[in-house]
Amino acid sequence: MSKQNQLDTLHHAAICVKDVREAVAWYTERFHCDVEYQDDTWAMLAFDNVRLAFVLAAQHPPHLAILGDPAAFGEPKIHRDGARSVYMKDPDGNNVEILALAPETAPAAKS
Amino acid sequence: MSKQNQLDTLHHAAICVKDVREAVAWYTERFHCDVEYQDDTWAMLAFDNVRLAFVLAAQHPPHLAILGDPAAFGEPKIHRDGARSVYMKDPDGNNVEILALAPETAPAAKS
Repeated sequence: MSKQNQLDTLHHAAICVKDVREAVAWYTERFHCDVEYQDDTWAMLAFDNVRLAFVLAAQHPPHLAILGDPAAFGEPKIHRDGARSVYMKDPDGNNVEILALAPETAPAAKS
Repeated sequence: MSKQNQLDTLHHAAICVKDVREAVAWYTERFHCDVEYQDDTWAMLAFDNVRLAFVLAAQHPPHLAILGDPAAFGEPKIHRDGARSVYMKDPDGNNVEILALAPETAPAAKS
């Protein structure tokens, strides 16, 4: 809830996969999307309006990441790239990440 | 893959909930988003860049809906509102819906 009278932005939806490389191949063969990041443990694809992340269940839960002020929801975790986030669960146990991008990368959030 | 050289659009991500009303309340109390549709069996929230749907597991699987030509992926199902879609599974069993909105509602896809 970073700005009044403006809808919040979903930065990415993260789904679980067993093989990141295979998932990236499947989606990029069928859809127009850019691979923003990929290694053996996770990947981030950019669609026109939002990002799709692939995560390994052993490392990250599936989640929805919404841009906002994580400190308003708990004690933020500081990521290596300077981003801050808090994870919480909705009433059904779905994981929601409140994410503040690092200042130098924040403008990319609108791409 | 509706247009060359343009990234595809994720229309909505649908997650499973047990109580649609409770889920809508939880998200709208915490985030700036508009309730586009809501009944006892599903709901659609609009964020700034994408939609978030709540579905009952008994009625719909969780899924990602990507705008495109469903006929390129299978035999489309025609919805009551004129939308057409095909469901398929990625290699990990995640459900992906290829969705073509009804002509009269298509412009709303960009909101």
